[in-house]
Amino acid sequence: MPRKKLVPPKKSSLVEKNNAFHEDAPVEIEVVVFDENTVKSELVGSIKTMKKYIDNEKINLVFVNNLTEPHIIEEFGNYFHIDPLLMEDAVSVTDIPTVQESGDQMLLTLKLMSFKASGELISHHIGLILGEYYVIVFKDSENKIFEELKTRIENSKSKSRMKKPDYLFYLLIDSVIDTFYSVVNEIDNIIDRMEVILVERPQSDYIHNLYRIKQPMSEMRGIIYPIREALHNIVQGDYRLIEDETIPFLHDVKDHMNNIVHMFDSSRDTLSDLLEINNSNTNNRLNGTMKILTIITTLFIPLTLITGIYGMNFKNMPELSWQWGYPTILGIMLLTAGGMYLFMKRKKLL
Amino acid sequence: MPRKKLVPPKKSSLVEKNNAFHEDAPVEIEVVVFDENTVKSELVGSIKTMKKYIDNEKINLVFVNNLTEPHIIEEFGNYFHIDPLLMEDAVSVTDIPTVQESGDQMLLTLKLMSFKASGELISHHIGLILGEYYVIVFKDSENKIFEELKTRIENSKSKSRMKKPDYLFYLLIDSVIDTFYSVVNEIDNIIDRMEVILVERPQSDYIHNLYRIKQPMSEMRGIIYPIREALHNIVQGDYRLIEDETIPFLHDVKDHMNNIVHMFDSSRDTLSDLLEINNSNTNNRLNGTMKILTIITTLFIPLTLITGIYGMNFKNMPELSWQWGYPTILGIMLLTAGGMYLFMKRKKLL
Amino acid sequence: MPRKKLVPPKKSSLVEKNNAFHEDAPVEIEVVVFDENTVKSELVGSIKTMKKYIDNEKINLVFVNNLTEPHIIEEFGNYFHIDPLLMEDAVSVTDIPTVQESGDQMLLTLKLMSFKASGELISHHIGLILGEYYVIVFKDSENKIFEELKTRIENSKSKSRMKKPDYLFYLLIDSVIDTFYSVVNEIDNIIDRMEVILVERPQSDYIHNLYRIKQPMSEMRGIIYPIREALHNIVQGDYRLIEDETIPFLHDVKDHMNNIVHMFDSSRDTLSDLLEINNSNTNNRLNGTMKILTIITTLFIPLTLITGIYGMNFKNMPELSWQWGYPTILGIMLLTAGGMYLFMKRKKLL
Amino acid sequence: MPRKKLVPPKKSSLVEKNNAFHEDAPVEIEVVVFDENTVKSELVGSIKTMKKYIDNEKINLVFVNNLTEPHIIEEFGNYFHIDPLLMEDAVSVTDIPTVQESGDQMLLTLKLMSFKASGELISHHIGLILGEYYVIVFKDSENKIFEELKTRIENSKSKSRMKKPDYLFYLLIDSVIDTFYSVVNEIDNIIDRMEVILVERPQSDYIHNLYRIKQPMSEMRGIIYPIREALHNIVQGDYRLIEDETIPFLHDVKDHMNNIVHMFDSSRDTLSDLLEINNSNTNNRLNGTMKILTIITTLFIPLTLITGIYGMNFKNMPELSWQWGYPTILGIMLLTAGGMYLFMKRKKLL
Amino acid sequence: MPRKKLVPPKKSSLVEKNNAFHEDAPVEIEVVVFDENTVKSELVGSIKTMKKYIDNEKINLVFVNNLTEPHIIEEFGNYFHIDPLLMEDAVSVTDIPTVQESGDQMLLTLKLMSFKASGELISHHIGLILGEYYVIVFKDSENKIFEELKTRIENSKSKSRMKKPDYLFYLLIDSVIDTFYSVVNEIDNIIDRMEVILVERPQSDYIHNLYRIKQPMSEMRGIIYPIREALHNIVQGDYRLIEDETIPFLHDVKDHMNNIVHMFDSSRDTLSDLLEINNSNTNNRLNGTMKILTIITTLFIPLTLITGIYGMNFKNMPELSWQWGYPTILGIMLLTAGGMYLFMKRKKLL
Repeated sequence: MPRKKLVPPKKSSLVEKNNAFHEDAPVEIEVVVFDENTVKSELVGSIKTMKKYIDNEKINLVFVNNLTEPHIIEEFGNYFHIDPLLMEDAVSVTDIPTVQESGDQMLLTLKLMSFKASGELISHHIGLILGEYYVIVFKDSENKIFEELKTRIENSKSKSRMKKPDYLFYLLIDSVIDTFYSVVNEIDNIIDRMEVILVERPQSDYIHNLYRIKQPMSEMRGIIYPIREALHNIVQGDYRLIEDETIPFLHDVKDHMNNIVHMFDSSRDTLSDLLEINNSNTNNRLNGTMKILTIITTLFIPLTLITGIYGMNFKNMPELSWQWGYPTILGIMLLTAGGMYLFMKRKKLL
Repeated sequence: MPRKKLVPPKKSSLVEKNNAFHEDAPVEIEVVVFDENTVKSELVGSIKTMKKYIDNEKINLVFVNNLTEPHIIEEFGNYFHIDPLLMEDAVSVTDIPTVQESGDQMLLTLKLMSFKASGELISHHIGLILGEYYVIVFKDSENKIFEELKTRIENSKSKSRMKKPDYLFYLLIDSVIDTFYSVVNEIDNIIDRMEVILVERPQSDYIHNLYRIKQPMSEMRGIIYPIREALHNIVQGDYRLIEDETIPFLHDVKDHMNNIVHMFDSSRDTLSDLLEINNSNTNNRLNGTMKILTIITTLFIPLTLITGIYGMNFKNMPELSWQWGYPTILGIMLLTAGGMYLFMKRKKLL
Repeated sequence: MPRKKLVPPKKSSLVEKNNAFHEDAPVEIEVVVFDENTVKSELVGSIKTMKKYIDNEKINLVFVNNLTEPHIIEEFGNYFHIDPLLMEDAVSVTDIPTVQESGDQMLLTLKLMSFKASGELISHHIGLILGEYYVIVFKDSENKIFEELKTRIENSKSKSRMKKPDYLFYLLIDSVIDTFYSVVNEIDNIIDRMEVILVERPQSDYIHNLYRIKQPMSEMRGIIYPIREALHNIVQGDYRLIEDETIPFLHDVKDHMNNIVHMFDSSRDTLSDLLEINNSNTNNRLNGTMKILTIITTLFIPLTLITGIYGMNFKNMPELSWQWGYPTILGIMLLTAGGMYLFMKRKKLL
Repeated sequence: MPRKKLVPPKKSSLVEKNNAFHEDAPVEIEVVVFDENTVKSELVGSIKTMKKYIDNEKINLVFVNNLTEPHIIEEFGNYFHIDPLLMEDAVSVTDIPTVQESGDQMLLTLKLMSFKASGELISHHIGLILGEYYVIVFKDSENKIFEELKTRIENSKSKSRMKKPDYLFYLLIDSVIDTFYSVVNEIDNIIDRMEVILVERPQSDYIHNLYRIKQPMSEMRGIIYPIREALHNIVQGDYRLIEDETIPFLHDVKDHMNNIVHMFDSSRDTLSDLLEINNSNTNNRLNGTMKILTIITTLFIPLTLITGIYGMNFKNMPELSWQWGYPTILGIMLLTAGGMYLFMKRKKLL
Repeated sequence: MPRKKLVPPKKSSLVEKNNAFHEDAPVEIEVVVFDENTVKSELVGSIKTMKKYIDNEKINLVFVNNLTEPHIIEEFGNYFHIDPLLMEDAVSVTDIPTVQESGDQMLLTLKLMSFKASGELISHHIGLILGEYYVIVFKDSENKIFEELKTRIENSKSKSRMKKPDYLFYLLIDSVIDTFYSVVNEIDNIIDRMEVILVERPQSDYIHNLYRIKQPMSEMRGIIYPIREALHNIVQGDYRLIEDETIPFLHDVKDHMNNIVHMFDSSRDTLSDLLEINNSNTNNRLNGTMKILTIITTLFIPLTLITGIYGMNFKNMPELSWQWGYPTILGIMLLTAGGMYLFMKRKKLL
């Protein structure tokens, strides 16, 4: 993981909302068709070409990148007999994560979070549709997290080769959830670094830095809580397409998500504490400033009064003509300063 | 969307409570009667005329504007056999959104929110009654949001032409919910602009501006949460008039409402953060002021003491007659100022 | 509604706890016996007289004022076969509102809230017992809110004349709930007036005024939430004495209570905001004071130093004998003041 | 109730945790055996003697004081066939209140709270075991609250004489719950007195006094909430030993507990408000101090500058030789002071 | 329990996350095989050797220390027919405590918390797998808390010798839960000491000390709440391997956990209060400082003005030549100081 700068970047938010697929990028469809014995993987440019590869006797894993054009969405949905409402939600990048079942399909929408090299956090939409003989993945072309999974499928000994599409569905979810660990860890690191700064350099106000962390965490909460709930629903719910033997695996993913939420909540607690500490630092700085002002004033003002008295122009001020008047007064001033010093000592100012 | 002023208007609340239909405006009834083959749309001035158009073999969409006169309410309710309690709630503009079923009708009350050109947020009451062969819409005459829907119905290929009234009911709800997106977005924009101001111009206190946003959001929460719950009840509840095949559409509307609530909650979180930042800005301003005061005092008070000493009128002050007394003292004063500067440097005041 | 003073009265609480019936006032019993055809209304002084009027073939509405004497309570309870525990709760003025069923009776305890002319809020206990052929109302003699209901019953066309006692029970509840609207509205007005004061005259601290509103609202919450729950229980619960056809009416009352709670919660939110604004005002006042102090000090202290320097009595201070020394120094002082002014401008103090 | 001192005692907590029975005090067993016709009451020193009095044809009320010795606990438990786990919980003074059923017994553990003469709040453990023909009460010997109940049982007309042990069980619970009213009332009084102090003497900080009340309330919450829940469980639960006809009595006790919790919560709300008021008082004191400082500085510093100017020793200062120079300058100083006064007036400082 | 230092150590967190078994330490397996008549206890170095001792006719208690090597995990899991997912969770040290059942096994993961001599709090992972004829304990080799349990088993009269493995499972849980009491007690002590410091020495800011306690408590909450829930699930759930007669014992453990959570929550409340007190102390210190500043300024500035006036060099200042001018002015200065003193007295500054 690349080292982040100690203080997060000046941008107001760590999360760059990536609320649209790459609109200018062309639709890309990648088809991986496999069964126990064979694997075939193709990158195709159109739905027409895709149809040639789909084989409903085998398991079909279809990656669809950058799908934004309405008529292609419709054509694609028609081919797989996907309910238009479900299809719309599958490619809608602004919605919160959720799980739905409709007819012969089941849809789970997720978000993928990752840190950019510049230290910003970005979120990508991912839609997974599970059908009788296929799993369709809607994603952004930039998104490479399923590469490793493809490699595993190509290995003929992979467990997924002998299982139904719902096991593949589980593997895809698992790949996404795994990425949250590193994000939550990175946030934990950023917060730890802020803590060190707050304790070691209490002279500055870090409110803006702290809120630059808090804002994306607030958005993240809106992502990881719904995902946890969606996974909970899958495990509890009686989804027709999920085989009983796949439930323990999904249960395990749900437990991972639970751990992530737990780590995240713990980070949020710490961040709240840091805000309090920052606040306390501000108050202490004010206290420190006022103490200095008070000490200086208390020490010098009485002395200034004394000099004022002997600066008066009265004709008849006998002290002025005394031989030792001046050193006596200087002595008195020293004694006054000492007295003030003791007074402040007693008042716990020093 | 029209640009809003950077700082919201001075009025105490962004929401102008429109808690009454246009009382001086006359009741207007608009009837749209249609089936698969025909559409007839009429604007009528009385219930008597209305009765001529209603055809219980077809679907009747009845818009009732500005209904406030008790005897017309009663007459209207009697014609459609609406329970008086239900009828009362349908036209009661102060109640919170809710769903009820009574006898052969089902009532859903909603609020329509919109920004006025002046930047104020206003809410309008909308009551929807679904019956066997009709949907009645109680609204304010100003309210034009269903125009587009009427145009769609007039199109003979519209899906709504082949469906039952419950599908029309769904379309009406959908039209209302859609308007919330722009309101929530606009609030998000206002908050974003406030955030920029708070970060860039921390010299002022924006508490009143922030509460001018917070107040209407507090009222909005009292509208969108009950609407979400009402939609949830419709989807879950076993309402006799809602066909099974319409449920997925209502489910979709409920999910939209969920997203709106989610966006709204996120805005509220941000607003809370802004209040904290504003608070922190205030403390920092105080800190800054105190620092200047302390620096000035610390630098000048000791020097003033020195001038005071040599302003004393003692006869016997040898320094006064020294040739280089004056420049020496000026030098000492410079050294003192330098010492104070270092002292403040060490105390992290500079 | 009488105008309240702008700032609430100095008393620590707006709610005067009226936790006892008028003990010195004599027990008063008022009996209204009616059926579809006849109404008879009598004010009697003793239970013995009362018995003569009670007719268990008709509906008996019995108002009992100021019932505190134990043996009368027992005698009364025995006559109507009321369970002693239920009877005790019916006249117990300190308990929170609740609903109970015991044997052939059902008890609902409520509180009546009202503003005194002096602007104070007082609460009165009301106990309603519903039996087979009667409804008993325990209340304070001062309490006149059921007068209008009595008049309506005397009207031979009144719906209540043709219904069972449970409908009468509903009408009584409705009369009580209606009074809450004006109380909640009045609180809303008081809060609105406080808001205007806080925004227009931020120079004072209103913490005590605000808490004088907050305290009674805290007590009110302890009344309206339990009432809402009691009504909810009546609607949900399977109470033997409540006919199915009365449920929609009670449902309607419950919805009214919901609206009241909603309005009340909204007022509490606003009050919280006002407390924050008041707090912010206090901080801003401090900031303002400190700014003035800093400006005055910054402008005058350096000038005072200059005068101090030329007030020193060194023999050899050439500037003193210059022809234009004095005006030059005055000029330097003006320049210094100008410099300080610019310095403060840059530090955003002015 | 004895008058408490206005400000609570300096001890850090009002609750003295009495987390052990009087260990040095000897075990005391008091047996009250009764049926409809006879009552026999004995104070015995050992379990052996006790056995002679127990009569399983009658109702046996057994008070056990200061039971801490393990072998006596075992012997006692064996005699009544009490499950060791239940027996252990019955005498365990540190646990939170709870209800359990095991075999033929049912255990309810409670806490008794009371104010000591010195104004401190102490809590005592009470364990109640209900069996077929007996109720056993584990308590501290100091604890005299059941004396009145014993007297009532000795009265041959007492209802308890004709009922089963579960009614006795109810009476014992009722005796304990009743004591909470006075404790909650006393807390309410202490808080009311603090409120008066806070409003009338805002010059001091009462944070430590307020937390000295808050701490024991926090501990009390840990007692009264579990008791309410335990009573709720008894009423709801299907406990074999509780007869149906005793349920309404226990329901009544539960309602009392509800009222106590309600009063307690209301006190806690008020205490929170007092903490806020105290906080606000502190801020206002700071504001007041700063105002004085600013007024004094603003009035005197400019005048001091004027005297500084005419204290300079320039040769050529024509004003100094003017006949009316001195009174003119005094006049100018008065005008300056007046100007500063108006300036502060405008800035709302005065 | 060793005395802790009054102020906790400077480390940022009291909890040292021990999120890995001792990786460099070798796997150690300890087998205790027993039935009513015989006990055999062996420390073995490999799974192969272990297999010789396991006797599925008896109860097998297997302690596995430092298990981190994947192939040993697999081999171990295969031997006991443990589901790989369950096995993975059993040795996964980062997960939150939970209970699961899979096939013929049941897994409970716990954390053991303890204070190091240096005053730091550390947490260790413990995994318990209950099978038909065995209980497996995964732990760290450092962990000695089950030593006492082993000794008890070796005693031929031990109850565990006559029971099924689920009773052993209960004993193991009980041993772990017991250690929480001392940890919670120690935290309570640390907080009590902090309270004393805060009250007795309010001159310092203890925010960092308080957060050094708060942070580990936040992490502890993430451990003890899930454990309570896991125990609750075991008691409620219908786990095949838990005999009905063991439920009361587990219920007892759950009640202990409830008490621990209750004590912990109470500590957290107190800590919150301490943070408030600390905050209040800071404000009071500021108030104190400002008071001194104001007193000094108010007393001396007016006197300085007087000396300034009589330090002016006007030719015509008659007072200067008066015989008693000087003492008169000194007298006036004393009176002014007295007046200022009275002024501050009235303003409650002194």
